[in-house]
Amino acid sequence: MELVKRVLAGERLALARLLTQVENDTPAGQAALDELFPFAGKAHLVGITGAPGTGKSSLVNQIAQLFRQPQAGMQPCKVAIVAVDPSSPFTGGALLGDRVRMRDLAGDPGIFIRSMAARGALGGLARSTAGVVQVLDAAGFDLILIETVGAGQNEVDIVRLAHTTIVVEAPGMGDDIQAIKAGLLEIADILVINKADRPGVENTTRALKTMFELGRPGRVMTGKHILQENETALISGEEEHSGWLPPILTSIATQGEGAGNIVQAIRQHGKYLKLSGEWGMRERGRLQNELEDRLQTALVARWRSRLPDEAFQSSLADVLERKISPLQAVAILLNFDVNYEEKN
Amino acid sequence: MELVKRVLAGERLALARLLTQVENDTPAGQAALDELFPFAGKAHLVGITGAPGTGKSSLVNQIAQLFRQPQAGMQPCKVAIVAVDPSSPFTGGALLGDRVRMRDLAGDPGIFIRSMAARGALGGLARSTAGVVQVLDAAGFDLILIETVGAGQNEVDIVRLAHTTIVVEAPGMGDDIQAIKAGLLEIADILVINKADRPGVENTTRALKTMFELGRPGRVMTGKHILQENETALISGEEEHSGWLPPILTSIATQGEGAGNIVQAIRQHGKYLKLSGEWGMRERGRLQNELEDRLQTALVARWRSRLPDEAFQSSLADVLERKISPLQAVAILLNFDVNYEEKN
Repeated sequence: MELVKRVLAGERLALARLLTQVENDTPAGQAALDELFPFAGKAHLVGITGAPGTGKSSLVNQIAQLFRQPQAGMQPCKVAIVAVDPSSPFTGGALLGDRVRMRDLAGDPGIFIRSMAARGALGGLARSTAGVVQVLDAAGFDLILIETVGAGQNEVDIVRLAHTTIVVEAPGMGDDIQAIKAGLLEIADILVINKADRPGVENTTRALKTMFELGRPGRVMTGKHILQENETALISGEEEHSGWLPPILTSIATQGEGAGNIVQAIRQHGKYLKLSGEWGMRERGRLQNELEDRLQTALVARWRSRLPDEAFQSSLADVLERKISPLQAVAILLNFDVNYEEKN
Repeated sequence: MELVKRVLAGERLALARLLTQVENDTPAGQAALDELFPFAGKAHLVGITGAPGTGKSSLVNQIAQLFRQPQAGMQPCKVAIVAVDPSSPFTGGALLGDRVRMRDLAGDPGIFIRSMAARGALGGLARSTAGVVQVLDAAGFDLILIETVGAGQNEVDIVRLAHTTIVVEAPGMGDDIQAIKAGLLEIADILVINKADRPGVENTTRALKTMFELGRPGRVMTGKHILQENETALISGEEEHSGWLPPILTSIATQGEGAGNIVQAIRQHGKYLKLSGEWGMRERGRLQNELEDRLQTALVARWRSRLPDEAFQSSLADVLERKISPLQAVAILLNFDVNYEEKN
């Protein structure tokens, strides 16, 4: 496909157009995903999530800018940002974040930004995010920052795409320990307490540490100490991959403080994943999930296209009148399918 | 089934045992759901959700106690509470809530309490909650309070069971408007600001009103005013069901303040649903979802049982080596199925 070639050649406009096709799940978008699939699988996918108001967007901007700075002996990274807002259209959050983002990052040809909002089904958002990320990966972006708001199943599905997951908290978002989203802590590879100039940062740090120690005994420490420990272990190769200890870092994104440590932690986590073999395991899990998800959709669609709608409606009507239970209706409809297959 | 008969006869111990069967999705549990299905469909299902720390559990206890008080010309309600904690085991929230609950409600034979925690798949929790609620409904409970923590897709799935959805907020859980979960507001039939003795209650009320007005123009007012308006409209029948205006109520559950208004709003919403025909529509939507969900599961299970595992693994391996894309693997596997069906 012409568009795919132009994307592989690095044309930004072609990339933007193709992403729209993929987001809308058009036949052209699906064909492009097939064509681009062999070129993907190289980028480091980093998910950043947290409640609204934690300052995620500013932090993402700073991380992106720091990754653009040339490192000794390394090519500068090409960075893509995918900002996903699964909440309803009336939050306005995405728009707000976009404006700040454009001010900070516009004009750098090594950064590409894409915002996505929830349109149709929520499951569909995770899938179209996966498609968008795959295109960006194939298009040669080395680091893809997937930013998403919130703490629900939805965000967990989106974050499941990532190799490295960063959870951002802020002090005073709810003081008691119960207010901390346990589900998010479980998926965090790096924890950031942003807005660390606010009162209550010690309480938040302590609460997070406690939660972590309850959940993963002996598996958490704070700040630079743990980063250095990890680094030594990784370089010396002495530690036999006993697991990643998620560091708890602090930052003040509005003043540019702390982003450097986060970038360092992302790089270390990437190294850790590759050395330990977890990178491949996560890749495998992700592709298997995608395959199973797509199989399920295709299977149900094919079956429904073969079943006359009257058969479904008649069983549904019986359920609504409580003549048969949903499980009994399933048995009837599955048998209908078998009979149909035998007749045809 | 013996157990089903004893449940229908009102035996609490039999009920507790049957609920365990249903929760664990045993064959006996599934058979019981089929047997009980014709007896269900009468209870008023009320979902109560909100972030941890908003005081939901205390509020639920008070609502349950108020519904137990005899009303003029009405039988006292039989009340069941289903407390669902979809977060990870290490929050400890469920346990804490349970202890308070037992102190307040133990000893009343007209109240039945069931706690559920996330064990296996998250989608599975919504389904087993539906099963538990159906059993309680068939067992003759008039009001079933489904309490769930949080704001994710998960909770939305659980809340989708309910006829009436109450969203509980508290002041100071994050001051800025962004911190309010838009997704939850969209599903709220009644909004409660609990802990109304805390500073910041005016800000929270104002923020909620603004959010609502953005989302549903002209469709929100506060406090008693709107309740009286609704009541008049419902009694006089003049208003042609132009829709329910979600009231914003305040309460201080620890002091027993405000629960009366909430109970009144629940009763009014129940009346509204029945008069407007929405009760039947929600019932229909709920059963159709359940049927489709169960069909999908059964269909995929049947298909997978027919497909040799090597066929799946070989396609997966090709995907992992990026020889074929997930969509191409789906096409191959679906065709495999067709060939298999033709041969057999």
